Amino acid sequence: MPDRLGPPLETPVFARLALIGLGLIGSSLARVARQKNLAGHITAIDASDAVRARAIELGLVDHVTGDVVEGVRDADAVILCVPVGVCGQVAKAMRSGLKRGAIISDVGSVKGSIVSQMAPHLPETVHFVPAHPVAGTEQSGPDAGFPTLFLNRWCILTPPEGQNADAIATIRAFWEGAGSMVEEMSPAHHDLVLAITSHLPHLIAYNIVGTAADLEAVTQSEVIKFSAGGFRDFTRIAASDPTMWRDVFLNNKEAVLEMLGRFTEDLSSLQRAIRYSDGEALFNHFTRTRAIRRSIIEIGQDSSAPDFGRQPKTDSPQ
Amino acid sequence: MPDRLGPPLETPVFARLALIGLGLIGSSLARVARQKNLAGHITAIDASDAVRARAIELGLVDHVTGDVVEGVRDADAVILCVPVGVCGQVAKAMRSGLKRGAIISDVGSVKGSIVSQMAPHLPETVHFVPAHPVAGTEQSGPDAGFPTLFLNRWCILTPPEGQNADAIATIRAFWEGAGSMVEEMSPAHHDLVLAITSHLPHLIAYNIVGTAADLEAVTQSEVIKFSAGGFRDFTRIAASDPTMWRDVFLNNKEAVLEMLGRFTEDLSSLQRAIRYSDGEALFNHFTRTRAIRRSIIEIGQDSSAPDFGRQPKTDSPQ
Repeated sequence: MPDRLGPPLETPVFARLALIGLGLIGSSLARVARQKNLAGHITAIDASDAVRARAIELGLVDHVTGDVVEGVRDADAVILCVPVGVCGQVAKAMRSGLKRGAIISDVGSVKGSIVSQMAPHLPETVHFVPAHPVAGTEQSGPDAGFPTLFLNRWCILTPPEGQNADAIATIRAFWEGAGSMVEEMSPAHHDLVLAITSHLPHLIAYNIVGTAADLEAVTQSEVIKFSAGGFRDFTRIAASDPTMWRDVFLNNKEAVLEMLGRFTEDLSSLQRAIRYSDGEALFNHFTRTRAIRRSIIEIGQDSSAPDFGRQPKTDSPQ
Repeated sequence: MPDRLGPPLETPVFARLALIGLGLIGSSLARVARQKNLAGHITAIDASDAVRARAIELGLVDHVTGDVVEGVRDADAVILCVPVGVCGQVAKAMRSGLKRGAIISDVGSVKGSIVSQMAPHLPETVHFVPAHPVAGTEQSGPDAGFPTLFLNRWCILTPPEGQNADAIATIRAFWEGAGSMVEEMSPAHHDLVLAITSHLPHLIAYNIVGTAADLEAVTQSEVIKFSAGGFRDFTRIAASDPTMWRDVFLNNKEAVLEMLGRFTEDLSSLQRAIRYSDGEALFNHFTRTRAIRRSIIEIGQDSSAPDFGRQPKTDSPQ
């Protein structure tokens, strides 16, 4: 494969890195850290026997352990790649092993809750720089990872006010090394932005797939058969990891409920336009949404290649 | 490109085919009909000067005209590829040109309304076999078409009871020649199935993109920047042709409102689970939806390749 990430670093960002959790994100980080020499030595910590065994088989890291205190000892950086709901518990468990001056980070899709869960358990001798790489697929587990997952994706840092500038710069260098573009904002603002760009879309997708599954008049096989008309794209999102997403919704409740309220209001208004055959309102709404799509393509967050009829893409449309 | 459609037919399905409307679907039909010899001679009829000029430049068909009566004269088959809302009007306009024994079809995403709009205008000497190819992209116009759009996609026929069996078999042969799998059902059942697999997903996608566009606290540039987290896939659907979709909702009102009612009920229940931190309800719901995704992949309506981080797909994940 072409090395779009650029050559490996001459000096690693971290001499010793500990990754807690080797799912899609953790194993992708391990892969890119190896490939780009972002860390001199990598320890992976995972509570699952099966995941640890698989990590060894895949040769993802230098050392694998189930013991979090042992795993984080001597690490210059510890990155939690576990579901949002267990971050507090993991922070508490690893506390006694943390090295003085270590940088602690995470990859959670929610930031306010992560800060309030983890900060109380972290000693003052470490630097806490929460992070959220806005990247992923609908797949999970150590086999699902790949080293370019973060390439050209945003990574949002939400450091506490007054956090050590060197620690922030180091985490930034790490993510830039993984191919990401880095931005900083407050945890609260992050949670609001992601509520609309990620959390609500997932909830909606999970919901419509559930609605379809419950129909009596339309058989499930018909739903599946004719899914190419739009439904298919929702099932892709709704195949994402249930534990991760349960935790996201439980931990970003206010922002998600706020966005959901707005969404429902707007949907009622479209529903009313359909009921009263207000074609102009529908047309105007559908036209407005096209502009947003255009902007996403322009800034390179997606390609303009048509995607509904997926197979044809592998041939060249004439 | 590999010829996945198989070799051209020795004898065309239709000696003379007239396509009314040369957008994404009409121009794709023209391309595949040429490539596979599905028609001996193709006339394209389009009301737009620009589209007609472009069709000539692209060399898509044998004859291009803006006059619907002239265009359908002598045609063995006439296929309407225009928005659902104008099908009645087109049927009325073309009536006097129709050849005795001609097969009349369409490609509309709604079938009950098409039948009630068109049937009153068609002479008894022609055979009406409505059709809906469940295929498309979010792009429109004669340049957006490609010959493999219908390959491995379903095409649903909704012939009136007692329709001439030869006419149905001929339309079936035409769509099979274009690479599609063909199924028959009643217009009412079609409209119910498509309401959940296609119409509601589009409405939801249009709605969430509109909701995002209206936010004050989150700037539009942030919505676009961080769209990789899920929102991006909705904008793709919400970039579909506004005229086509306005007409779909106006012409499948009952089924869409019914599905929307169910969707909203289910969403209220997820909303309640979030508000009261019912993690178990959320987890169970999210787990159930994964099974549907698996079925879609199994029957080949989508690939299992991860799609959120789109760029990496062009490299080979290690």
